[in-house]
Amino acid sequence: MKTVAVVSGGLDSTVMLHWLLEQGHDVRALSVDYGQRHIRELICAKKLCHILNVRHEIADLSGISHLLGGSSQTDPSIPVPEGHYAGESMRLTVVPNRNAIMLSVATAWAISMKADNVAYGAHAGDHEVYPDCRAVFASAMDVVMRLADWHEVGLLRPFINKTKAEIISLGAIMKVPFELTRSCYNAREKHCGRCSTCFERRESFITAGVDDPTEYEN
Amino acid sequence: MKTVAVVSGGLDSTVMLHWLLEQGHDVRALSVDYGQRHIRELICAKKLCHILNVRHEIADLSGISHLLGGSSQTDPSIPVPEGHYAGESMRLTVVPNRNAIMLSVATAWAISMKADNVAYGAHAGDHEVYPDCRAVFASAMDVVMRLADWHEVGLLRPFINKTKAEIISLGAIMKVPFELTRSCYNAREKHCGRCSTCFERRESFITAGVDDPTEYEN
Repeated sequence: MKTVAVVSGGLDSTVMLHWLLEQGHDVRALSVDYGQRHIRELICAKKLCHILNVRHEIADLSGISHLLGGSSQTDPSIPVPEGHYAGESMRLTVVPNRNAIMLSVATAWAISMKADNVAYGAHAGDHEVYPDCRAVFASAMDVVMRLADWHEVGLLRPFINKTKAEIISLGAIMKVPFELTRSCYNAREKHCGRCSTCFERRESFITAGVDDPTEYEN
Repeated sequence: MKTVAVVSGGLDSTVMLHWLLEQGHDVRALSVDYGQRHIRELICAKKLCHILNVRHEIADLSGISHLLGGSSQTDPSIPVPEGHYAGESMRLTVVPNRNAIMLSVATAWAISMKADNVAYGAHAGDHEVYPDCRAVFASAMDVVMRLADWHEVGLLRPFINKTKAEIISLGAIMKVPFELTRSCYNAREKHCGRCSTCFERRESFITAGVDDPTEYEN
């Protein structure tokens, strides 16, 4: 089964990539550069795919970043919010319609290669902040993808009902090199330890009872 | 009602743009450059929007063209097929997953502007060749768009059950400047008159009983 995995260099999609390979999928990996603040996570994705001997391509969507105003991820004038994922401030980290765009581009590539699936690593913890990580969105997207071409491509979302701690537990069993993954929203070398995604990463390792190899600034 | 109109500079989307303005929509126009053979149609779109005093933006998707192999519209090694829209050869004109990508990008822009709708000009004549112009696709896409964000954006597809001749008739009533629209798949100055979209254009003017102002090569 040929599958396009959407990978960000983050923790969830890296565990998913290992899981797809374990399941015997013939995997191609795609990362999306949508004009985000920094490309550390893309470098992580490239390195991880190189180690796993998986073909990796980057979809350069920087040519639409002028249409994606209002997110701290693409607009340098908006500061990265700190603290837990909760409340209005975290909505600033949402790139509008990011997953529909990413999955549509991945589907185009899948169609042109006659692949069977596209996979993305949305998980249960994403749901409150990111509407396009909900199970109901994924199901609707699967329908669109299957209707978009005479060659049918389906959407795999293996972690849609898993917590990040459960993903880490699964990754630990598969010996995923967590130290090569990148979560932090900031551009500095080490994980800041203070932004929402760093908070979530730290706490999830503790909940999972797995050693956290991440170097945090504090 | 604020609406993002996806416009190509072609006949259908130009009539749609006039129709939306007639209906009182507050319109923004978006064209997509997905690395197509030529940009004559984008120049037409820009000119038409300027005349109508509608803000026009271009989404530059040339950074994903390496993922869209296998179409005569993006791969210069594949010749443009001639003759009617029918049979396998016309499938070569399909850019994989084009409409899902276009509509997802338009939706992102709509969300960031808090617009109510995205509109596209798919029509009944497109259905056989282009799966992503079918009513069933448009309905599924509408669901995805509404679920993608807490701010709901709907999909308008006013011509989904109209023929191209009917669109031309409607355009004639609204005095659409058809001579400023561009259909031809080839890059030359005049419409070639031989590719599938020129055939369809020519025949539809005849069916509609509307004078065709297009200059064809033959």
